[in-house]
Amino acid sequence: MPLTEKALIAQLRRRVKSGRGIITGIGDDCAVLRMPAGHEALITTDFSLEGVHFRREWHPAESVGHRCLARGLSDIAAMGGEPIALFVSLALPSDLPQAWVHGFSKGLLKLADKFGVTLAGGDTAQSPDGILADVMVLGSVPRGKAVLRSGARVGDRIYVSGKLGGSAATLTQIMSHPRRKLKPRNFPQHFFPEPRLELGRILREKKLVSAMIDVSDGLSTDLTHICEESGVGAELQAHLIPREVDLKFALHGGEDYELLFTTPSGKKIPSRVAGIPITQIGFITRNKKIFLTTADGSKEELEAKGWEHFKSRK
Amino acid sequence: MPLTEKALIAQLRRRVKSGRGIITGIGDDCAVLRMPAGHEALITTDFSLEGVHFRREWHPAESVGHRCLARGLSDIAAMGGEPIALFVSLALPSDLPQAWVHGFSKGLLKLADKFGVTLAGGDTAQSPDGILADVMVLGSVPRGKAVLRSGARVGDRIYVSGKLGGSAATLTQIMSHPRRKLKPRNFPQHFFPEPRLELGRILREKKLVSAMIDVSDGLSTDLTHICEESGVGAELQAHLIPREVDLKFALHGGEDYELLFTTPSGKKIPSRVAGIPITQIGFITRNKKIFLTTADGSKEELEAKGWEHFKSRK
Repeated sequence: MPLTEKALIAQLRRRVKSGRGIITGIGDDCAVLRMPAGHEALITTDFSLEGVHFRREWHPAESVGHRCLARGLSDIAAMGGEPIALFVSLALPSDLPQAWVHGFSKGLLKLADKFGVTLAGGDTAQSPDGILADVMVLGSVPRGKAVLRSGARVGDRIYVSGKLGGSAATLTQIMSHPRRKLKPRNFPQHFFPEPRLELGRILREKKLVSAMIDVSDGLSTDLTHICEESGVGAELQAHLIPREVDLKFALHGGEDYELLFTTPSGKKIPSRVAGIPITQIGFITRNKKIFLTTADGSKEELEAKGWEHFKSRK
Repeated sequence: MPLTEKALIAQLRRRVKSGRGIITGIGDDCAVLRMPAGHEALITTDFSLEGVHFRREWHPAESVGHRCLARGLSDIAAMGGEPIALFVSLALPSDLPQAWVHGFSKGLLKLADKFGVTLAGGDTAQSPDGILADVMVLGSVPRGKAVLRSGARVGDRIYVSGKLGGSAATLTQIMSHPRRKLKPRNFPQHFFPEPRLELGRILREKKLVSAMIDVSDGLSTDLTHICEESGVGAELQAHLIPREVDLKFALHGGEDYELLFTTPSGKKIPSRVAGIPITQIGFITRNKKIFLTTADGSKEELEAKGWEHFKSRK
């Protein structure tokens, strides 16, 4: 076993605590976990691959650790669930500096601690080339209450939390000036995105949402997922989309990890929930396409070119 | 999205069925699953990386698909559990032939069908280099009944199922004659290992085992895991170890996926369980070392050099 792999396991084992629902964590053939009574299990897995999802020269190790867990926590938030445990499969190149492993663990476990999620297992291997992480998050939701993508109905209003496009705009800035180092803490939307767990849980508990997804692939793509699964269309109003960056980033930029949801016409949504601003950006239509209307009244079909749009850079 | 990735998702989605306990499978932010009443969840994840765990020129795609699920199912078996669902994270190089993806899915899903395990989600990505798979298996076990590694007591007998070393012996044969193609179906222990799910479940139900592990890293290493977690030692009798190959393969060769377990002295173990031969190979001792005795009466300490022993080849 190469040194980095050994060090990683030792580091992670030291940090493993007995947490809520964890009967047996790291150190057996399987982790043994108990679901809260009357709850269903939520499971999500996400790859974070060097050269695809992050680059060592752009993303500090702590940001990589944070981001690869944030992706899964955001998926749990989008179901209205609560996270219980995480599992990390990590393959590391044999020449990886110890400091990288340390930073990665720090970023990952800091975010896990913040949301009371226990590291309960995983796998390690030597990587033939580049850092490879696959993070699985287990959560729970009361039986039959998971918020799906398929519940949007004609006439529902469309809302989004926070501001969109910040992560993609930052990435573009990094790519345009690769030598100018950005201070990660000044660009938290990209380097340290915050999964909207409390928001998702409150929306589910108060029965305010008919469908929900997290904005991980970009607004245009993620809204398409809701429309396809619900068998509906949508109209978005460009001037309402909350953003501090160019409209193209807000429409197609991925990895914002805000929540995108639909609300039946009779329900009232506060302007802030769990401290996060909530903005209406459109409504659900019968016509199974997505249209974008602008302030001057023009209307055009919106193509789903989220995440994919940015993939060409890789 | 590259063609292979699209084809894979389409292929997998077509094959996803509503299975036992699956409320929502592929197609939402998370899978939603229900545990059987009075059961705990078992979770295990295993990487299968090209160049580390398999080689494209040695292992047909169908074998790769089979093996990467067999690893997780074997972990469930070692807890005495039953598998429910699997999740596949798969990163593929953009130039991978469609036929490979097809073969991989076939091998994976055939084994899943055999044991009634439902494909319930996963992730796909483009790989920067080589095929990367991470398979997570979710299973269940009645509350408090999971068989751990930590339950072995002084005086317990040590048993193993089937025969050991076959997988490593085959691998050595492949490496020594890389041009001579072996027929995979003639070497099932290596190419299509059978997870011992029924055996593990019966041993747990009949309360015949105090500790259990699957032989994935090699007998010497896996027995060390049991001894370390249980705070005991062991004495193995070399001439009793069931094998058709050189002793070194049976002692240190990995990936046999047989079950290694300990049984309290009062319990009687049949010579076959679930059709699989069961062989006593030693006993648990107070001295926290592992010794190997041979037919001529000599006795030497056994080092844990399972899997690692073979890693140098890579």
